[in-house]
Amino acid sequence: MTTLAAARRIMQRCALLASCSEEASCLTRPYGSQALLRAQALVADWMRDAGMQVRRDSVGNLIGRYDGERDARALLLGSHLDSVRDAGAFDGPLGVLLALACVERLEARARRLPFALEVIAFADEEGLRFHTAYLGSSALAGAFDTAWLRRRDSAGVALAEAVRAMGGDPAAIAAAARRPEELLGYLEAHIEQGPLLETLGLPVGVVTGIQAQSRCELCFTGQAGHAGTLPMAHRRDALCAAAELVLAAEALARSEAGLVATVGQLTVAPGASNVVPGQVRFSLDVRHADDGILARAVAALEAEAARIAARRGVALEWVCGQVTPAVTCAPELTVLLEAAIAAQGLAAPRLASGAGHDAVMLARITPVAMLFVRCAGGVSHHPAEAVALEDVAVALAVLEEVLERLAKQHAAEAGV
Amino acid sequence: MTTLAAARRIMQRCALLASCSEEASCLTRPYGSQALLRAQALVADWMRDAGMQVRRDSVGNLIGRYDGERDARALLLGSHLDSVRDAGAFDGPLGVLLALACVERLEARARRLPFALEVIAFADEEGLRFHTAYLGSSALAGAFDTAWLRRRDSAGVALAEAVRAMGGDPAAIAAAARRPEELLGYLEAHIEQGPLLETLGLPVGVVTGIQAQSRCELCFTGQAGHAGTLPMAHRRDALCAAAELVLAAEALARSEAGLVATVGQLTVAPGASNVVPGQVRFSLDVRHADDGILARAVAALEAEAARIAARRGVALEWVCGQVTPAVTCAPELTVLLEAAIAAQGLAAPRLASGAGHDAVMLARITPVAMLFVRCAGGVSHHPAEAVALEDVAVALAVLEEVLERLAKQHAAEAGV
Repeated sequence: MTTLAAARRIMQRCALLASCSEEASCLTRPYGSQALLRAQALVADWMRDAGMQVRRDSVGNLIGRYDGERDARALLLGSHLDSVRDAGAFDGPLGVLLALACVERLEARARRLPFALEVIAFADEEGLRFHTAYLGSSALAGAFDTAWLRRRDSAGVALAEAVRAMGGDPAAIAAAARRPEELLGYLEAHIEQGPLLETLGLPVGVVTGIQAQSRCELCFTGQAGHAGTLPMAHRRDALCAAAELVLAAEALARSEAGLVATVGQLTVAPGASNVVPGQVRFSLDVRHADDGILARAVAALEAEAARIAARRGVALEWVCGQVTPAVTCAPELTVLLEAAIAAQGLAAPRLASGAGHDAVMLARITPVAMLFVRCAGGVSHHPAEAVALEDVAVALAVLEEVLERLAKQHAAEAGV
Repeated sequence: MTTLAAARRIMQRCALLASCSEEASCLTRPYGSQALLRAQALVADWMRDAGMQVRRDSVGNLIGRYDGERDARALLLGSHLDSVRDAGAFDGPLGVLLALACVERLEARARRLPFALEVIAFADEEGLRFHTAYLGSSALAGAFDTAWLRRRDSAGVALAEAVRAMGGDPAAIAAAARRPEELLGYLEAHIEQGPLLETLGLPVGVVTGIQAQSRCELCFTGQAGHAGTLPMAHRRDALCAAAELVLAAEALARSEAGLVATVGQLTVAPGASNVVPGQVRFSLDVRHADDGILARAVAALEAEAARIAARRGVALEWVCGQVTPAVTCAPELTVLLEAAIAAQGLAAPRLASGAGHDAVMLARITPVAMLFVRCAGGVSHHPAEAVALEDVAVALAVLEEVLERLAKQHAAEAGV
């Protein structure tokens, strides 16, 4: 089977998995759902056909193992099978199926690598149902907080029950944790979810790391007043203050390469067309690949907000909820990815990932690397999500090249 | 009774009327409510005690008539007795009770003017219950749209039923209309609902007119995207576009004397903290005393919105719903008011009214004039609404002076 034919099979499988949904009209495949179990059953069959030993761990991740020749340690390959609501077909499944295809093609040649390969289909990355991301990979990384088991979904079902529905065991979540010494690393392919590869005209890119993220809640409180009778000079308009910060955040982010800042939520009180806004609450999401640059950007915006508040006579409330530090991809794996891309005769752009991925959790226990695949218009989390067959073929060739190079390195180190 | 004692009685009556409420914890007195009927009953008694003939017209306005010596034509004096929700004690009642006090003090001296005085307590100015302002004065001005009778309040009660509850007759609303030839004019005292008199340190001011108002609904549509993966250079952020227009409206209004512009409502879609805003809908309320200046300001903002949309690659939807032309107070009455204020040894500042008043409707059938009374902090539509006893005394003296000057003019014109 040619690489292109293998890529075509990946595309067809993505479409088939997309039919496993909790909703008839769109793709929604949350953790613990029958739809996710149906998707896992399909993937498990393909894994078995590829000569893998298949199991589900205690949180419900599906794991296929393809033993190596000499070394019991495993290189983990994979991504997730759960989805957001009204999702696209590729965010997650593409990475699982690319990994599976690598093994299938080794098995077709009766080829074993010196080390084991494990293809992992994580059971929850998006956090759609229980509003906590990385349930699957956090268990694998030994970072699953058992307090989460008491979380309930919108229907009142506890996470512990959902774990059982996935064939898992809430009491034995810790058993899903992998020991670093049994792992060689984690390699994940994923759609870019952004437009850079498309802009560059390149099918794949190497992820340098996953951006640090700061999430803050802001509130400006001025004074409401009559839109007709309150002269401009007397106003303490909370929305005008917020508008200044929205634009300040945009300008700052535009001025620093790789920085993104987003005000995605904003509510105005009292919120009547003839009343000057007295209070505006809004979110601020800032991300950069460098923890220090992010911290300085957030501090600069907080100072700017304070200046706006002082100048306008409004009060400022600034609550920084969550700061997620940056994850740096392992240089030794990243260099291999670059070499593998170059071997296809392609430029290997380096990209920072703005979105979170299972690699965030895996980085706690093993070196991680990621390959991004171009997606149409940078669109993700949407039915319009699309990748090109040819790009999938390139991604597959790159992953196979990485495996071959790793095998060669391993042999050299072992002095074979 | 001194003017100050009369003012004190007005203050006490305002407090008493404030106890007529549909809600125990705050003042809410909508059209058609028992609270409004109780307030009318109090005022009707005071009117009768002042020698007036009292009636309710077909929409439920309370009218007390104090006949003149020779001329059957009437000068109308008054304001409204209904309120917004959680209202203050003075917005409306102060004007009714100042008018009533003028008549009481004429009656105490057994004095009749050459013409009749009618004190009108309008039954609905705020439009709280049926979301249409000026129900009372529009009936009087012959501008009541009988289609309104089918409007229903939030409990499903039709306006026609509420008219009957007010002792009115929905089938005879037209009978409430007054003929211009039976009127000399309409004079209304009202709290300023703004901070200018307080800033100037003056108790009263002359209203030059009621501002023209333009109400528009705007929508910027860009493209939603992932807050982490969509680089700044690729964004078409609808909230950033809206923020620019919010600040452009503020800047324009600040640059033109008397212009006010307000974005009071704004909603962001999809409205998630980690999603770049794809669409923002917002209101724009612009007012100025001059129709032409208002029209130019709105046109300038529409052009600016189009520039913002073009520069950012977002779509603009701009719907101008309602344009209310400016009402100009009658120069002959306004000059009299100024002279009457000057006679108190006070400066007579000219103010444009940013809020609407019953005078808007009355201007359709008779010359109108308004006297503004300073209110604390410019606050209205709020329990904190407050006026000073001394300012009420000044307002009363000014109104009495206007009546005397009108009487003298009338006598001179009649050659008496």
